[in-house]
Amino acid sequence: MKKNVFFQKQIFTIDKLFPKNNFKKKEKVNSVETLKKANKNDLTFYDSKIYSKEASSTKASFCITTSNLAKDLPSSVEIIIVKNVLYELAIVLKKIYPLADIDYPDFTLKKANNRLFKSVKFGNNVLIGKNVKLGLGTIIGSNTVIEHNVTIGKNCIIGSNTVLKNSILGDRVVIQDSCKIGQKGFGFIPNKDKNFKIPHIGKVCIHDDVEIASGCTIDRGSVDDTIIGKNTYLDNQVHVAHNVKIGANCMIAGQVGFAGSSIIGNNVSIGGQAGISGHLRIGNNVKIGGGSGVVKDIEDNQIVMGYPAVPLKEFIKINKKN
Amino acid sequence: MKKNVFFQKQIFTIDKLFPKNNFKKKEKVNSVETLKKANKNDLTFYDSKIYSKEASSTKASFCITTSNLAKDLPSSVEIIIVKNVLYELAIVLKKIYPLADIDYPDFTLKKANNRLFKSVKFGNNVLIGKNVKLGLGTIIGSNTVIEHNVTIGKNCIIGSNTVLKNSILGDRVVIQDSCKIGQKGFGFIPNKDKNFKIPHIGKVCIHDDVEIASGCTIDRGSVDDTIIGKNTYLDNQVHVAHNVKIGANCMIAGQVGFAGSSIIGNNVSIGGQAGISGHLRIGNNVKIGGGSGVVKDIEDNQIVMGYPAVPLKEFIKINKKN
Amino acid sequence: MKKNVFFQKQIFTIDKLFPKNNFKKKEKVNSVETLKKANKNDLTFYDSKIYSKEASSTKASFCITTSNLAKDLPSSVEIIIVKNVLYELAIVLKKIYPLADIDYPDFTLKKANNRLFKSVKFGNNVLIGKNVKLGLGTIIGSNTVIEHNVTIGKNCIIGSNTVLKNSILGDRVVIQDSCKIGQKGFGFIPNKDKNFKIPHIGKVCIHDDVEIASGCTIDRGSVDDTIIGKNTYLDNQVHVAHNVKIGANCMIAGQVGFAGSSIIGNNVSIGGQAGISGHLRIGNNVKIGGGSGVVKDIEDNQIVMGYPAVPLKEFIKINKKN
Repeated sequence: MKKNVFFQKQIFTIDKLFPKNNFKKKEKVNSVETLKKANKNDLTFYDSKIYSKEASSTKASFCITTSNLAKDLPSSVEIIIVKNVLYELAIVLKKIYPLADIDYPDFTLKKANNRLFKSVKFGNNVLIGKNVKLGLGTIIGSNTVIEHNVTIGKNCIIGSNTVLKNSILGDRVVIQDSCKIGQKGFGFIPNKDKNFKIPHIGKVCIHDDVEIASGCTIDRGSVDDTIIGKNTYLDNQVHVAHNVKIGANCMIAGQVGFAGSSIIGNNVSIGGQAGISGHLRIGNNVKIGGGSGVVKDIEDNQIVMGYPAVPLKEFIKINKKN
Repeated sequence: MKKNVFFQKQIFTIDKLFPKNNFKKKEKVNSVETLKKANKNDLTFYDSKIYSKEASSTKASFCITTSNLAKDLPSSVEIIIVKNVLYELAIVLKKIYPLADIDYPDFTLKKANNRLFKSVKFGNNVLIGKNVKLGLGTIIGSNTVIEHNVTIGKNCIIGSNTVLKNSILGDRVVIQDSCKIGQKGFGFIPNKDKNFKIPHIGKVCIHDDVEIASGCTIDRGSVDDTIIGKNTYLDNQVHVAHNVKIGANCMIAGQVGFAGSSIIGNNVSIGGQAGISGHLRIGNNVKIGGGSGVVKDIEDNQIVMGYPAVPLKEFIKINKKN
Repeated sequence: MKKNVFFQKQIFTIDKLFPKNNFKKKEKVNSVETLKKANKNDLTFYDSKIYSKEASSTKASFCITTSNLAKDLPSSVEIIIVKNVLYELAIVLKKIYPLADIDYPDFTLKKANNRLFKSVKFGNNVLIGKNVKLGLGTIIGSNTVIEHNVTIGKNCIIGSNTVLKNSILGDRVVIQDSCKIGQKGFGFIPNKDKNFKIPHIGKVCIHDDVEIASGCTIDRGSVDDTIIGKNTYLDNQVHVAHNVKIGANCMIAGQVGFAGSSIIGNNVSIGGQAGISGHLRIGNNVKIGGGSGVVKDIEDNQIVMGYPAVPLKEFIKINKKN
């Protein structure tokens, strides 16, 4: 049974989670996973036609969806029909992972201790949670907080006043000062007087040789993970929302913002202050000009600019005309 | 006499503050307040026609204004005519509240102590100032600083490496890591070689059930307060300038910025990286697209997008034409 | 021999750095400097026609450049012809300054001690590096880190949770909470699988009476310095990239971003969320509207707005037309 090392799990059989539904087998729910990652005994969810391809081949045992979308799912899936998929998902997540909806401060933190991490160098007042793993030759700056179960690879340099939680870092990752990585993303079901917070059970994966400059925020995934690909560099004050996947060898300039769940290819360069809307696919080798607002998918090898972003030639033409 | 718990006050009679003016009564000035909030013995200021309605009904005893605007004030007000209202206001504020023009670090901070706050949980190295009030069940993350006289309600969760000053929080407020709340806003009288800093004597009020994500900055009010309404959620890296009032049930996405003194209604949603200019009124149920630049008031129930922001239909039309 | 107090230097003769080249004199390289600042025995670099004027009058002994640009340099300069100037520069910088390519945490930090700084006031847990100089009457907030060799003038106020490195501050500078100042900028030679980080050997110079609000990031210069001129004020969450020079008496509103190496005049005001591209020259008394994207040089006394920014009158005309 796959384990979520960051969040405590409560065990339920599927009929306890959805008592009004009939299920062929009253099995224990292993985990909540995306359509793509789900396996036998996992519960998944399908809430938008964008993901019809993933839906048609999911291996999940159970899926929360709407009556309209249900037909896209394989017959192997037991379907839970609801009106508001994300709301029902949030309620179930809260039952299974009761502590993932708020970033409760980590009370396992202790002052870093070189007896436990012999080859690691610590600045002053570094705080390390339970089960943290730190690779050989890694250096951690002063006042930095590394919460329980975070894994950091070899020869990483982490700056000062940074907070890392629910994250797995590769080797030779550099993170500068005052970054905030692994916190809950901006996900909730709007509700008058009291929104319902969507538990975030994903993590942040930062691959080898990534550099993240000062003051960045990288939210962990909701059900999926947030990923920063190998050798990708982020400049200061970049914001990466939940579930975003950035490829390898990308260059992301200062103050760029990514809304949730977009997938960015390899070798993508994005100019300062550009914004990428949610649920988009940006191809490989794409160049996005500074200040652009990207609201549509972009194919490989395109150069775009503008708000909304259009091919560069068009942007130049429009601005000549004006 | 109303008290400002955050800033020490010097007592002056009105004629000592403005020795060149003649006053009917040489009374003690109680406080400096906005046109709307001022009462008997308060000093207020009136510097823009935008606030003519508030001017006509102010209960202040004294008002700094210009010769052009003076006629809008009730006859009960003793008027101080000046050329530059904000400059004269700043000088008077500096006299009455000599320590409000710079965020002097708080030397009353002490390491958090559970004997004083029995039902509160603290991370490591939490620093708490004099007269701080913390509600039952509240949790404060590591390295967080809570300066003197801040009040935090019940069952709040405050993250790590956050700084809170001059603020009053309701119940069940969640604040993530590295937020900066209650600092002086961006207010000064430009002066070659040495600007004159406008003392900020207001505070930040954060109502029940608000969530504020990582890396946000919320400046306290100058004379008025900065307010975040009940159940409003702010995503990462949002900037809220002095005197901004955000209503209830709003959703503010990542990297949005509010210039000073704008008033936002209830149920407003604002997409990532949008900017709201100063001194605007945004109605209830307004939706503002990501990346928009709002430079005009917006009535209730409108959907706008663009830079400058226009109704969504118009934005789509303009971009088709191009 | 000029000394870089922030970065350890290895001594090389020019022929050891470029063994394939022939040099008239096999002299020790004093330092790596910009075309303008270089003196006898310094190595410089020339990689763009923008800097032809500085190239023609450089006093450097050695210069890395391309075969196309070489003719602009005076005959006194020994020229090293390469294909990729910045790449060769980066390699040489890494040899001479081996520790400037990553912000290695400072292990000379110690808890602030009033016996060493008698007239300075410290909050709690302030960390001070070796050879730090702090002027009379300066106050440092809690959890702030000031790394080795930083110089801070008289009567400065530094907030809490701020990190300062590789920086020189004048008198009466105010820095609010959680600023990140002096870190390496966003400079590297893209390389599949492993970028080559450009060592940053410059510093940040912040002149007298500057105010920097919460959450700002100011990168140090790569070879040159990053400069914030006298009495300039920065609002919250401003990002200043490497080598940017901002003049005196400027007003920079919240969330503005500067790409690298731009030069901003005096008395410039920039509205919130505006972006200034790299390598530009913005004149004196320029006003740039909020949200603008500046991609061209701007002459003195202009008012511009828009994305891309155009003279204000034109911006209004375009938006009427739409």
